[in-house]
Amino acid sequence: MDRVDELARAFERFPGIGPRQAKRFVYHLLASNSGDRTRLADLISSIGASVKQCAECRRFWSGTNDLCNYCSDTGRSDAQLMLVERDQDLLAMERTGSYRGRYFVLGGVLTLSGKGAIRERELVERVERRSNTGLEEIILALSATSEGEHTSEHIRSLLQPLRGHMRLFELGRGLATGSELEYADKETLSAAFTNRKET
Amino acid sequence: MDRVDELARAFERFPGIGPRQAKRFVYHLLASNSGDRTRLADLISSIGASVKQCAECRRFWSGTNDLCNYCSDTGRSDAQLMLVERDQDLLAMERTGSYRGRYFVLGGVLTLSGKGAIRERELVERVERRSNTGLEEIILALSATSEGEHTSEHIRSLLQPLRGHMRLFELGRGLATGSELEYADKETLSAAFTNRKET
Amino acid sequence: MDRVDELARAFERFPGIGPRQAKRFVYHLLASNSGDRTRLADLISSIGASVKQCAECRRFWSGTNDLCNYCSDTGRSDAQLMLVERDQDLLAMERTGSYRGRYFVLGGVLTLSGKGAIRERELVERVERRSNTGLEEIILALSATSEGEHTSEHIRSLLQPLRGHMRLFELGRGLATGSELEYADKETLSAAFTNRKET
Amino acid sequence: MDRVDELARAFERFPGIGPRQAKRFVYHLLASNSGDRTRLADLISSIGASVKQCAECRRFWSGTNDLCNYCSDTGRSDAQLMLVERDQDLLAMERTGSYRGRYFVLGGVLTLSGKGAIRERELVERVERRSNTGLEEIILALSATSEGEHTSEHIRSLLQPLRGHMRLFELGRGLATGSELEYADKETLSAAFTNRKET
Repeated sequence: MDRVDELARAFERFPGIGPRQAKRFVYHLLASNSGDRTRLADLISSIGASVKQCAECRRFWSGTNDLCNYCSDTGRSDAQLMLVERDQDLLAMERTGSYRGRYFVLGGVLTLSGKGAIRERELVERVERRSNTGLEEIILALSATSEGEHTSEHIRSLLQPLRGHMRLFELGRGLATGSELEYADKETLSAAFTNRKET
Repeated sequence: MDRVDELARAFERFPGIGPRQAKRFVYHLLASNSGDRTRLADLISSIGASVKQCAECRRFWSGTNDLCNYCSDTGRSDAQLMLVERDQDLLAMERTGSYRGRYFVLGGVLTLSGKGAIRERELVERVERRSNTGLEEIILALSATSEGEHTSEHIRSLLQPLRGHMRLFELGRGLATGSELEYADKETLSAAFTNRKET
Repeated sequence: MDRVDELARAFERFPGIGPRQAKRFVYHLLASNSGDRTRLADLISSIGASVKQCAECRRFWSGTNDLCNYCSDTGRSDAQLMLVERDQDLLAMERTGSYRGRYFVLGGVLTLSGKGAIRERELVERVERRSNTGLEEIILALSATSEGEHTSEHIRSLLQPLRGHMRLFELGRGLATGSELEYADKETLSAAFTNRKET
Repeated sequence: MDRVDELARAFERFPGIGPRQAKRFVYHLLASNSGDRTRLADLISSIGASVKQCAECRRFWSGTNDLCNYCSDTGRSDAQLMLVERDQDLLAMERTGSYRGRYFVLGGVLTLSGKGAIRERELVERVERRSNTGLEEIILALSATSEGEHTSEHIRSLLQPLRGHMRLFELGRGLATGSELEYADKETLSAAFTNRKET
C-alpha cells in the first residue's frame, strides 16, 4: 500500500472522517511546508506524555498534578458527582456555569448491540471510596439517545448495591432552545410540561 | 393577470409555499379531473361554515356545540389553563396524554419587529371570567424561540393586573429526545441540569 | 370523517405535501377571512374552464385560441420539437432564451416500476402529422434521472418506426453551475470532458 | 497555551475542520494507544520524504521516478493537457476512464478577493516547453463556480501570448446526473440544449 493511502487510512479512523476527507487531509499535509508537518507529528507523538489523565475524574488535562483543576478545586462540592460520556461533555457543562460539583468521565457509551466500553471499574471504585465522605447525589448526564439511555440503565444496575442513601438523577428533558411545540416529539413535550417552571 | 398566475398567487399565501411550488399546485389541479377540483373548491368554501371556533379556547373544530370537546369535558380540570400559539400545538400536547387541563389558542405569535397578532382581548376576557372560578395555574406553552419568548413576555405583562393568586408557568427547558450534550447550547444544558430528575 | 380531516386529505394529494403541512393549510384557511376562501374556491373550480390545453403542445395556458402563443408563433422554427415532462419544464427552457423551436408536453414520466403515464397517442399523432412538414429534429429534454432515462428509452422505441430522416437528440450532460470536479459523478465528468467547449 | 489546545489549533488548519471537531480529534488521539499515535506521527513526518511531486504535472505520488505514472505513460497522448485545481480532481477524472492525455495540477484556485495561489510559473514553463512538441489542446478543467471561472479567466490571459496554434477548451456544462429540468439554472439548461447529443 502506498504511503498516501496508508496515511489516509489512519485519518479515516478519526471521528466523523470518511475516505474522501481523509485523502483531502493527506493532500493538505503534502502541500504544507515540511516544518508544519514535523511540528504536527511532534505534537501528536508527545501528546500522550504531556497530557495526563486525572486520577479522579479520568479526564485528559495538561497539568502536572495527579488531580485536575476541577477535582482539586476546594470550592466545588463533593456532594454531587456528574457522570458524562466524554471529555467534551464535561467542558460543555462547565461552560454553562451552573454546576459546581465533581465529575467522572465514562469514556464512551455502550451500544445496543453490545459494543462500546465505559470505565466501569474506575467508576465503581470512585463511588465506593466517596460514599462515606459526603457523596449524596449522582447525576447521570448522558445523551438523550437510545445509547445514552441504555448506558444509564447499565450504570444504574452497577451502582445499585452501592447506593445506600445516595440519590441518582438524570438530566431533565424538555424543549431545547429554538424548538417549536408542533415539531417536538411526545416524550419531549410531556417532559416540558412536567418540568414547567414558575415565572 | 392570467388565471394560472392568479391561482398560483393565492397558493403562495399558504404557509411555507414559494412561487415555484405554488405553480406546481396549479398544474397539479389542471391535470386533475374536474370532479376533484369541484370537490376541493366545495370543501374550501364550506369549511368556514362546517367548522366552528370554540367559544372558550378559540380552536377550530367540527362539532355543533359552542364549546369544543376539550372545553366541555367535565373530566378535565378548570384549575389549569394552557396557552398555545396554534391549533396544531394544542393537538401535539393532547397526543402526549400528560395534560388534563383547559386550553386557549392565541392564534399566532408577536414578532420582534412588532408584527403578528394574538387574541389578546379574548385571552384577557377568558382569564378575568375564570379567575373567580377555580383557575389557579396558567401555562405559557410557547415555542422556545425568540418570538415565543417575546410573546410570553408580552402576555405576562398583560396578565399581571389579573394575576391575583394565580401562578404563571413556562414549559420546562432541557434535552430534547435525541440530543447529545456536546451539541446542546448553554441554556438548554443548564436547564437540563436544573430540571434533573430522580431515577 | 370530519371536515378538517377531509380537506387535509385533499391537500395531501398536492405534490410534495405531507399530512402535517396539509393540516397547516387547513388551519391557515380557517384563520383567513371567508372572502378569501370563497375567492380561492372560485379560482379552483373555474381554472378548468378558464385554462385550455393547447391542441399542439398540450400545455395549459389561458388564451382563447386553440394554439398557445409558442405553437402559433410564426417566428419559431417547425424544424425542432422538444419533448418535456411537465409544463414547468417548458417554462424553464423558455426562460433560457436559447430555444426557438416547438414543444410537446408529455404530462409526466414512466417509472421503473411501470407506473406513470405520458401522452403517447398524442405524441405519435403529432410527430406523424409533422414528419412531412419540416420536422427535422426531436429533442428528448427529460430529467437526468433514472425515470427520465427510462422514459426517453420508451419514447425512442415509440418513435423508431416514424423516424425517417428525423434526428433524435438528448440534452447534454456536463457540470452544472456551482459544481466542483471532485464531487461530480463519473458520468457527469466524462460528459463534461466530451462536451468540452473551445474558449 | 496548553498542549491539547495547541494540537487542536493544528487540526483546525485541516480542510473543512472547525474548532469543535479539531478538539474531538485530540481526544480521539488521547484515547488511542500510544503505539497508534507514534505510527501516525511517523507517517506524517515521513510523508514529505516518501511522496514526491511529479516534475511534469506537479501531483503528489509515491513512486521513485521524477515523472508520475501518468506523465511517463507512453500510451497517453502529448497533444492534450488538462489543467485541474487539485490532485483529487485529477484522480476523479482518471476514474471516468475517458481522458488519455496529460495533466497539470494548479494547486488551488484564485479567489475573487485576490486570495489563493496557483502554480503559474510552472504552468507557463510547462506550456512553453511543450508547445513545440505536439501540444495541441489545453483543457481548463476547473470547477463550475465563480472562483473556478475567475481562475480560468486568469489562466487564459496568462497563456494568451503562448497560444500559437494551440486550442483552449473548457469543460462542458449541462445537466448533471440526477438533476431535473425544473430546478436547473438558466446557464446549465441553456448549455444542456446547446450540447445536445444525437441518440
